[in-house]
Amino acid sequence: MDFNEKYSGYLNEFNRALNSFCENLNCKPEILCESLKYSLALGGKRIRPVLMLAVGDLLGVDRSKLINFALAVELIHTYSLIHDDLPSMDDDDYRRGKASNHKVFGEGNAILAGDGLMNTAYSILFKECRKGAEYVSASEFICDCAGIYGMIAGQSADLLHENDSIHNENTLNFIYENKTGKLITAPVVVPSIICGGRCFSELKAFGRDLGYLFQVTDDILDVEGSFDDLGKSIGKDLKEGKYTSVELYGLDGSKLRADVVAERCKTILEGIDGDREFLIMFVNYVRNRKK
Amino acid sequence: MDFNEKYSGYLNEFNRALNSFCENLNCKPEILCESLKYSLALGGKRIRPVLMLAVGDLLGVDRSKLINFALAVELIHTYSLIHDDLPSMDDDDYRRGKASNHKVFGEGNAILAGDGLMNTAYSILFKECRKGAEYVSASEFICDCAGIYGMIAGQSADLLHENDSIHNENTLNFIYENKTGKLITAPVVVPSIICGGRCFSELKAFGRDLGYLFQVTDDILDVEGSFDDLGKSIGKDLKEGKYTSVELYGLDGSKLRADVVAERCKTILEGIDGDREFLIMFVNYVRNRKK
Repeated sequence: MDFNEKYSGYLNEFNRALNSFCENLNCKPEILCESLKYSLALGGKRIRPVLMLAVGDLLGVDRSKLINFALAVELIHTYSLIHDDLPSMDDDDYRRGKASNHKVFGEGNAILAGDGLMNTAYSILFKECRKGAEYVSASEFICDCAGIYGMIAGQSADLLHENDSIHNENTLNFIYENKTGKLITAPVVVPSIICGGRCFSELKAFGRDLGYLFQVTDDILDVEGSFDDLGKSIGKDLKEGKYTSVELYGLDGSKLRADVVAERCKTILEGIDGDREFLIMFVNYVRNRKK
Repeated sequence: MDFNEKYSGYLNEFNRALNSFCENLNCKPEILCESLKYSLALGGKRIRPVLMLAVGDLLGVDRSKLINFALAVELIHTYSLIHDDLPSMDDDDYRRGKASNHKVFGEGNAILAGDGLMNTAYSILFKECRKGAEYVSASEFICDCAGIYGMIAGQSADLLHENDSIHNENTLNFIYENKTGKLITAPVVVPSIICGGRCFSELKAFGRDLGYLFQVTDDILDVEGSFDDLGKSIGKDLKEGKYTSVELYGLDGSKLRADVVAERCKTILEGIDGDREFLIMFVNYVRNRKK
C-alpha cells in the first residue's frame, strides 16, 4: 500500500466536502464569512477527518455517513486554533505558515470567527441528529470531547499552568489528554458509534494514545523542526516555560516515550479485525513526521 | 393577575434548575468552573427562560419538557455577554452591577468561559435530542438563531459598523434583528416546535418584534437610565458612536417606535387562543422597564 496515495485519497474526499461547505457559506457581514473561510482554507494535515474516514473503512462504515461528522470535527478544531492563537491565550502570529486569524481580521473578529465555527459545527450535527439515535450519540460524543470536560478543560489547564516554576507529570498528562487527545479520540470513535459500538473501547484507547503521541511529537518538533516545515514559531513553548514533554523528560526521553506509545497504538489496532494497514502506517507517520 | 408574582414563579422555577445545574458542574481546573458559575450567577432578568416557560403555558406544553431548553438558551445568552464585554469587542468592565468576567478572571479565561458555556449549552441539547424528532428540531432552531446567520452575524455587524460616520436604518435593523431578536425568538418558538408547530409563524413574528422592542428600550435606558438600576455603564453607546435607535430617530422618535412595536406584539398575542394575559403584561413590562 502506498500510504501517501491513500492519505491523499482521504484528504481529497474531505477537501471536496469542505470546499462545497465553504462555497455555500453566505453569512453577512462579509468580514465574518471571509474570516471563517480564511481559517478553514489554511489547510493543514486534516488528520482528524482522515482518521475518521480511515476508521470508517476499517469498520466498514459507509463514508457518506461520516463526512458531515468529519466536517464538524474539523470546524471545532479550527475554532480552537483561532482562539488559542489570540494574544490573551498562546499569542501566536503564525498558523500553518500564514498570519493567524486575529492578525488579519483583528481580535474581535477572530473571537467571533471562532464562536461562529463552533456554532456552525453543532448546527451541522443537529441536522445529522435527524437521522437516528446513533447519530445523536455520535454528536453528543463529539460535543463532550470538545467541551468543559474535554478540550476546553485542557486549554484552561494549559493557560493556568503556563507560568509554573515546577512542572509535574500529572498536569502534563491532563493537558495532553484533554487539549489534544479528546479531539483526536472523537473522530476515531464516531465510526464505531455509527455502527452500533463495534470496538468502542479499543478505539477510544487508540484515540487517547494517538493524541498523546501527536502531542509528544509536536513537542519534539518544537525543538528539532523548522519554521518552513511547520509554518509556526519554533522553540516558543520551551522559551515560554510551557508544559512540554521535552521540558519534563528531555529530548531523548520524549523520543523514547513516543516510541513506546506508538507501539501501544499499533498493538491496539492489531486487536481489531479488518484492514488495519493504513492506520498502522498512520501511527508511524505521526511518530516520524517532520511537520 | 399579579404580574410580578407570576414572573417570580417562572424565575424561581428556572433558577432552581440553574442552581442544580451549577451544583453539578465539576470541571477542572477550578478557575474554569468558577468563571462559568460567576457569570451564570450574575442573574439578570432571565427574560428568555421566563418567556419560554410562559409561552409553554400559553400552548399547554408541560414545563418539564422545556426546562433544559431554557437552560441552554440562558447559557448561550451568558456566553455572548462574556465575549461581547471583552476589550476587543464592546469593552465593558461592568455587567449587572458587578465586574465583567474578564475583569475578574482575565481575558484568556473569559474567552474559554464563553466557549465553555456555548459548548455546554449544546451538550445539554444533544441529550434532549434523544427524546425525539421535535426535540431535534427545537435544538436545531436554537443553534441556528445563535449562529452565523443569527446572533453572531448581529454582533459582527455591530463591531463592523461601530465607527460608521453615517448611520442607516437597514444596518440598525440587521443588528437588532440578529444580535438581539434571534435569541429572543428562540425561547418563544421552542414551545411551539415541541408541540408540533402550533402558532409557529405568529410566535416567530412575536419574538422578532419583542427583540426589537427590547433593544429600543435598551437604547432609551442608555440615555435615561441609571447605573444603579441597570448595573452597567450609561451613555456609553451614544458616546462611542454606536448604532442606536436614539441616535437614528431621537429619544422621542425611539419612544414612539417602541410604542408602535409594543402594540404590534400585543396584536399578535391576541390572535393566539389561550391565556395570553401574562405575555401581554410582559410586553408592557419590557416597554416600561427601568432596568
